Amino acid sequence: MSTSPPSERTTVRRRPQRGTYDRAVVEAVLDEAWVSHVGFTADHGPVVLPTMHARVGDQLYVHGSVASAMLRSLGGGGSACVTVTLLDGLVLAKSAFHHSMNYRSVVVFGTARLVEGDEKLAAMKALIERVEIGRWDALRPVTDVELRQTSVLAFGLDEASAKVREGGPIDDPEDDSWPVWTGVIPLPR
Amino acid sequence: MSTSPPSERTTVRRRPQRGTYDRAVVEAVLDEAWVSHVGFTADHGPVVLPTMHARVGDQLYVHGSVASAMLRSLGGGGSACVTVTLLDGLVLAKSAFHHSMNYRSVVVFGTARLVEGDEKLAAMKALIERVEIGRWDALRPVTDVELRQTSVLAFGLDEASAKVREGGPIDDPEDDSWPVWTGVIPLPR
Repeated sequence: MSTSPPSERTTVRRRPQRGTYDRAVVEAVLDEAWVSHVGFTADHGPVVLPTMHARVGDQLYVHGSVASAMLRSLGGGGSACVTVTLLDGLVLAKSAFHHSMNYRSVVVFGTARLVEGDEKLAAMKALIERVEIGRWDALRPVTDVELRQTSVLAFGLDEASAKVREGGPIDDPEDDSWPVWTGVIPLPR
Repeated sequence: MSTSPPSERTTVRRRPQRGTYDRAVVEAVLDEAWVSHVGFTADHGPVVLPTMHARVGDQLYVHGSVASAMLRSLGGGGSACVTVTLLDGLVLAKSAFHHSMNYRSVVVFGTARLVEGDEKLAAMKALIERVEIGRWDALRPVTDVELRQTSVLAFGLDEASAKVREGGPIDDPEDDSWPVWTGVIPLPR
């Protein structure tokens, strides 16, 4: 499994110790999350829309109607940012400043590639089989009309970074005796 | 409670029947979700980063380090899109085409307003009290240094829209007898 060195835009700058470019970490987050948030630039400015994704190897696939503004914009070769966040817990500290969240997030920068042919079918199968392995073959087969109405886009993972925060609160030592409960409230996944 | 008419960019175009501009729906989604995805335009293109948010009235607050690229970019008056998604279930249909997700999402367009003074403290309190009501007064008080190191941004909800999908799969009638299980798999919140 390859791990790309960080590019200028994937370099984690805030709390860089929480950043990683380890492909295994990136893939694990992508594979666990159901939804990604896709950012692109419309005429009026930035737009962020949620969508389901599936990863196959080093390709991240999203899909949607050929009529959607997002798919049309990205399919035209615009720059994109796909962000995936898993929230693991609320971190309660002695001071407001040190409150935090435990999370695992991935940010993928890139230009979408419009996918066709066998790869398009394989991506659609991957999206279905995230839900249930073996389901694709059990379904009523996809028709040509449905295929034409669906766009599938691929993003490479060359410019992907992950950021992870875990563990309890990190309080200032002088606050140790402040009488308030601290700890982590786990969140359901 | 006011409800703004949709602007050009907040108008839900794909499956408009799932879109709403009802302020009560928008606020309920914002208040339930822990994380929003903030989109802005950097020199190299779109960026989407996860952050915690809190709503007070018709203002949506996010915060972060004054050193963060996101806070600096947005605090400078750039256009933004803040998107919040609650995933409720996976919708399994007879055909791949009709698979879907049940979700409630909100998209807020706007230009961030850098918040100072009493409003900044009130926003920070709102962020803390999302976790536990009464916690703000129990914490070690915020210091001036911490205040200076924290940026708080506000977005109005004038250009907010919600989109909701609920209920079971909507299959083609001719697929009714296809022998595969269909239904909704609820997801934990």
